[in-house]
Amino acid sequence: MPTIKDVAKLAEVSVATVSRVMNNNGYVNQNTRQRVEEAIKQLNYRPNDVARSLFKGKSKMIALFVPDIMNPFFPQLARAVEDTANKYGYLFVLCNTDNDNEKEIAYLNALLQKTIDGIILVSNTIQVDQINDINVPIIALDRKINSNIISVTVNNREGASQAVRYLKETGCKRIAHIAGPKDVSSAKQRLEGYLDEVQSEEWFTTDYIRYGNYTVKEAYQATEELLSQHPEIDGIFAANDLMGVSVLKAAKNLGFDIPNQLSVIGYDGMELSDITSPTLTTMAQPIYDIGKRAVEILIEKIENSDKEVESEQYQVQLSVKESTHERREVDE
Amino acid sequence: MPTIKDVAKLAEVSVATVSRVMNNNGYVNQNTRQRVEEAIKQLNYRPNDVARSLFKGKSKMIALFVPDIMNPFFPQLARAVEDTANKYGYLFVLCNTDNDNEKEIAYLNALLQKTIDGIILVSNTIQVDQINDINVPIIALDRKINSNIISVTVNNREGASQAVRYLKETGCKRIAHIAGPKDVSSAKQRLEGYLDEVQSEEWFTTDYIRYGNYTVKEAYQATEELLSQHPEIDGIFAANDLMGVSVLKAAKNLGFDIPNQLSVIGYDGMELSDITSPTLTTMAQPIYDIGKRAVEILIEKIENSDKEVESEQYQVQLSVKESTHERREVDE
Repeated sequence: MPTIKDVAKLAEVSVATVSRVMNNNGYVNQNTRQRVEEAIKQLNYRPNDVARSLFKGKSKMIALFVPDIMNPFFPQLARAVEDTANKYGYLFVLCNTDNDNEKEIAYLNALLQKTIDGIILVSNTIQVDQINDINVPIIALDRKINSNIISVTVNNREGASQAVRYLKETGCKRIAHIAGPKDVSSAKQRLEGYLDEVQSEEWFTTDYIRYGNYTVKEAYQATEELLSQHPEIDGIFAANDLMGVSVLKAAKNLGFDIPNQLSVIGYDGMELSDITSPTLTTMAQPIYDIGKRAVEILIEKIENSDKEVESEQYQVQLSVKESTHERREVDE
Repeated sequence: MPTIKDVAKLAEVSVATVSRVMNNNGYVNQNTRQRVEEAIKQLNYRPNDVARSLFKGKSKMIALFVPDIMNPFFPQLARAVEDTANKYGYLFVLCNTDNDNEKEIAYLNALLQKTIDGIILVSNTIQVDQINDINVPIIALDRKINSNIISVTVNNREGASQAVRYLKETGCKRIAHIAGPKDVSSAKQRLEGYLDEVQSEEWFTTDYIRYGNYTVKEAYQATEELLSQHPEIDGIFAANDLMGVSVLKAAKNLGFDIPNQLSVIGYDGMELSDITSPTLTTMAQPIYDIGKRAVEILIEKIENSDKEVESEQYQVQLSVKESTHERREVDE
């Protein structure tokens, strides 16, 4: 498969010259033009649409930065971003940043050198002044960066409150929270949503809040400790499904009957929540929709940089499965 | 954050000229050189190591192509590739190909235009003549492409046989297989490994082979049908863990007692197999090791193209969890 570099080499000109010949713009002398055209013919070089767009200074490629590729939420989000990008004729690359700001900056630099057309960032470590001067459109997804950066997010605080209200409505009297990392905005907002619903209850104690840090392992440990110290707990809201699955597992291993003795609700609406026994009730984010909208807005900005676009916020939806009771109005 | 393009624009020269100035190679006239140096100073442009490597024709970036980012096996593999790439100072981008050859070719073209340094391919759709002429190193991971392309794989056939032998040793008398897609080499080899162990048994029938196509949904359906038609089955070997989890779920929903009535074994050794109840016995692939080795070999080739490297094949390891019996020698 010959590349533009092979053409340039054979014709003994620069890649930029090959590009000028192919796009018929800029001055190229007749002799050089002929050499390039012969090289193209000889190598049977046929740039596809993507390659052709490169000549025009557009790479037709966008990037998505995610903090943790091992959390199945992000592959699901990536799926939506990719489908939508492809639909508009864009390729998509995924960069995993580990919430590591140095890595984010290294990726930004490297990709911008490669004239990527736009970037979607899921980040809680990036600083605004690190991206202020970047001359391609940037959209924040899932986590806000600041009010100047257009974002597509969900209403985490309200979604979390809804989860806790549902536990109350179905009869839970002592509701605990397995929280995400202290420095991640989505986790902070979900904790706030939990507090909105419980902090005025006479039974409430901050000892009911444990940090699982969005990981399977830490959530398991946190739940084991919580339930051993507080067997009176009859409802747990986990700040994501990955931790919700761990809560189910830890509670079952301690002999809790779910949902008769203990109700569990997660947050995210991942496919994962369907394969556990019992299946996990969850606050389902419109994962596909937010991924899709982020790409659509990004491409609008790429193709028309004057276009005014606005941040969008979506609602989450209660998805009742087997880990909580049906509403108990009848019993009470 | 100024880029090389900003420098080129301010100095009114091409990016290639800026690069020549910074690397002090190729002819640049004195006046131009001065303009570039002033622009660099004025913009406070400081290319980091990654950017600097770009000037030298090395991008210090490698790509991994995977067929299905939603299968947790691939994020786990990507994690290994990324860690190792980072260790050697390389960034890493992930491309999801959906087993779609057109998409693979579009990515190859786009990335090569961007002077990526090397590519790791997990693919069963790419044709050898599509990559023969590519002038950066390519390593096949997890799935062989052909004997000319260096590969890092596991011994799927032997691993599958081992799984079935374990089911036999623990007392299973009627062993079925939930297979992966017919056109994926790893799935074909695992089916062959199953057949090696069962096809001479008098109880064997091809009706014990059902296709779950490496997906949760199809594996669930296949298991439901299989067990409804053949309640005599007492062991199932699923060709990957994703399907193994579905087998557990379908069998439990049909009232099968696992492992007393039915033993289930998966293949892959994903973290997923730890969160189910019961946990899933599996043939654990050295996922991290194969990802790591693929990168190490790739970087050896990138940094020393004359280096002779060889394909490597790894063994899988039985990991006994709760979905199978302990060996029953004592009972028999």
